[in-house]
Amino acid sequence: MNIKEFFDLSAGKWFSHRTSHHLAFQQFEDGKSDIVVEILATDRPEVIKLCQRYEISPSSAACSAKVTWNEIMEGNQKKDSGSSVLVSIPDVDNPNEGKFLQEIGSTKETSIIGRYKIGSDGALTLTTEYENVSAEERLWFASPNLRMRVRVLKRSDGFSTASFTSEIRMGGIPSTKKVSETANSAAS
Amino acid sequence: MNIKEFFDLSAGKWFSHRTSHHLAFQQFEDGKSDIVVEILATDRPEVIKLCQRYEISPSSAACSAKVTWNEIMEGNQKKDSGSSVLVSIPDVDNPNEGKFLQEIGSTKETSIIGRYKIGSDGALTLTTEYENVSAEERLWFASPNLRMRVRVLKRSDGFSTASFTSEIRMGGIPSTKKVSETANSAAS
Repeated sequence: MNIKEFFDLSAGKWFSHRTSHHLAFQQFEDGKSDIVVEILATDRPEVIKLCQRYEISPSSAACSAKVTWNEIMEGNQKKDSGSSVLVSIPDVDNPNEGKFLQEIGSTKETSIIGRYKIGSDGALTLTTEYENVSAEERLWFASPNLRMRVRVLKRSDGFSTASFTSEIRMGGIPSTKKVSETANSAAS
Repeated sequence: MNIKEFFDLSAGKWFSHRTSHHLAFQQFEDGKSDIVVEILATDRPEVIKLCQRYEISPSSAACSAKVTWNEIMEGNQKKDSGSSVLVSIPDVDNPNEGKFLQEIGSTKETSIIGRYKIGSDGALTLTTEYENVSAEERLWFASPNLRMRVRVLKRSDGFSTASFTSEIRMGGIPSTKKVSETANSAAS
């Protein structure tokens, strides 16, 4: 698995179920979302703009994707929707590691730069440091139709959150019955 | 990290928070538990008995632990308590992989045999096949005081469960205030 193959395998429509554990408070939050991951050509204006923000040549980008989500939180029915552009910039001497750039456009537009690494087991690890937060996220495929993500956020005041997301590929199939069938096929 | 170091680092008292995602039903369950992990000498009667059940020489065991839990599920306040004995039997040619044996004693006593592997990233992966279920569990330390576990169960009828457990080391400190402090120190 290389970074481009990981992006390609992530493309499509997913049902995403996220649970966050607030470690200090022994509490949790649960949210569900439809997610669409779309591969972007690296000569697209949003990719070029994001590279230029970090003074990186867009020609060094290996791959890019746009992620769109529409999350509903359990209980309070709070909604969060937005989209994000991701760009990977492999290291010259080792393409299994490199920089990744992310632009998040929801209420206000922000961007971050971090590092990615594809492990020998095919998992993708993303690490970022921004403001007072250090984040490490591990993403991997339990099967081609079942993606897992575990993210640990450590704030400088010591409070941490660990969140787990299971994602089932839905393709273009919208009905609940079909989702259930896809969930079953995710097991195989 | 080798298997013995992983067991040693796991020893102690933990606050364990588990969330299970039932993939086909888009539902979840949440449970909290105190867990005690105690290292067992490999000449203990329960270790010898478990090895003998699988016709394995107890002298080939690398390490063993006893895990005791006391879980309360969210909502219905359903309780589950029990204990489990784990034994690792490294392969002769590669001690980073091997068999693991587990005896689970709660309402009825059952035992299983599976495979373990310590990855180059220090994570422990356990795989088992029993009756109609195939299970893969990945355990790793986000920090010495914060352990993560992700388990995927695939049943032969196609229904899958993915569960995530975050575990914070508590040492011998019982009060909530102290747990909170430990959770904070887990971030460092």
